[in-house]
Amino acid sequence: MTSTWDTEPTRDAFLGGRVSLFQPRDGYRAGMDAVLLAASVQATPGQTVLELGCGVGAAALCLAARVPGVSLTGVEIQPAYAALARRNAEANRAAFDVVEGDLARLPAHLRQVSFDHVIMNPPYFDPDLGTGSADPGRDTALRGATPASAWIDAGLRRLAPKGWLTLIQRVDRLPDMLRALDGRIGSVCVAPLAARAGRPPHLFVMQGKKGGRARFRMTAPVILHTGPSHERDAEDYTAPIAAALRDGAELRIWD
Amino acid sequence: MTSTWDTEPTRDAFLGGRVSLFQPRDGYRAGMDAVLLAASVQATPGQTVLELGCGVGAAALCLAARVPGVSLTGVEIQPAYAALARRNAEANRAAFDVVEGDLARLPAHLRQVSFDHVIMNPPYFDPDLGTGSADPGRDTALRGATPASAWIDAGLRRLAPKGWLTLIQRVDRLPDMLRALDGRIGSVCVAPLAARAGRPPHLFVMQGKKGGRARFRMTAPVILHTGPSHERDAEDYTAPIAAALRDGAELRIWD
Repeated sequence: MTSTWDTEPTRDAFLGGRVSLFQPRDGYRAGMDAVLLAASVQATPGQTVLELGCGVGAAALCLAARVPGVSLTGVEIQPAYAALARRNAEANRAAFDVVEGDLARLPAHLRQVSFDHVIMNPPYFDPDLGTGSADPGRDTALRGATPASAWIDAGLRRLAPKGWLTLIQRVDRLPDMLRALDGRIGSVCVAPLAARAGRPPHLFVMQGKKGGRARFRMTAPVILHTGPSHERDAEDYTAPIAAALRDGAELRIWD
Repeated sequence: MTSTWDTEPTRDAFLGGRVSLFQPRDGYRAGMDAVLLAASVQATPGQTVLELGCGVGAAALCLAARVPGVSLTGVEIQPAYAALARRNAEANRAAFDVVEGDLARLPAHLRQVSFDHVIMNPPYFDPDLGTGSADPGRDTALRGATPASAWIDAGLRRLAPKGWLTLIQRVDRLPDMLRALDGRIGSVCVAPLAARAGRPPHLFVMQGKKGGRARFRMTAPVILHTGPSHERDAEDYTAPIAAALRDGAELRIWD
């Protein structure tokens, strides 16, 4: 499934304006998830990062803005999104190489390299679950046809020894993701993300280290908003989330 | 591995004195985990409950004290613990049938019945991990030779349609437990238990329904203690935990 759009893309500011992204007006639009994924990656200058399913490059380019000197590669199956990702790499002057292709069948030149970090925000819904989006590109991003196990498998294969896998996903997919890891990665940590204190988490960030030997652990929930309920027109992000979203700060999961 | 003890068992009060348990002075001694497991089981009067690895019967007898008219069966591999469990059933006048045997090879009469609830508190450590306890019975309870998958498998086989599995376990075993479930049970909910607010959870209660169709979910952590640190000699349990431990109240995980 591919997308073309009749309308011009929007141009949206991320990280308090540090990153500017062209996005399809009607397709899948990057949100907080991509920014929090980027914020959770403990990359250091000079390291290499592969993003599977990079879309227009939101997570990769937010990471590039935080960690100078990282070398980024993105894989995106949808040509229209890959094209926007390239345009965004250029607009943000980032070392971000975008490869159009299927993550389950990576091109040969990518299969010969490994990365210090692999990051991903796989589709949140099963392909056979519910009705699709009217926009086919948005549908692929939300309900992708590639199973979770293929995402994990592709990621683990491209990870260098001692490299880190970082992903963000809906809580209801936690068992699928853990099953897909199948003990092939160690030092796995899950950080649940909850809208407010005391609420059930709806998302999680998972991090694991190739060859890591620490046992599985979970952090206390990362709380997104202060207070018990939403107050209209008041930004109520907690301090670490506000720092990650507005200032491009790191969100440290695994220390 | 079996235990006999030279010393007389202790007799300990649970649920504010509602339950009184003989326990080995030097062996494995039931604690808060067993009580919280019992508190999490949403059994109703007249239902049947199987506990795998019941030890001296702490969880089963706490459940019997909360839900009148439940019919309980326990399986315990260690004869000395099974004997104490029978003594405890009698002392607490509970309908608690204790079967001495290996949960991975249940006797024929048990393999022909199914239960409304199966509960378990499997050993927290792998048999090949770390050094054993000086007491062989305590060692079996802590580091059991039966793998997690065999516990889950035995439990699922004995569960009636729409029956509930409830278990308590260390957080670092969450991936093992989810892998052992392997999609054979639905409506799975994980409630992490944390010592204090903002601390990483160290235990979790997991509940799932045979034939359940709700997607996996996680609750906000259940916090055990109030305040940021332990205050000497002051009982600082949170209200729901104090109610479960002292008054035998239900701890509702999945609603």
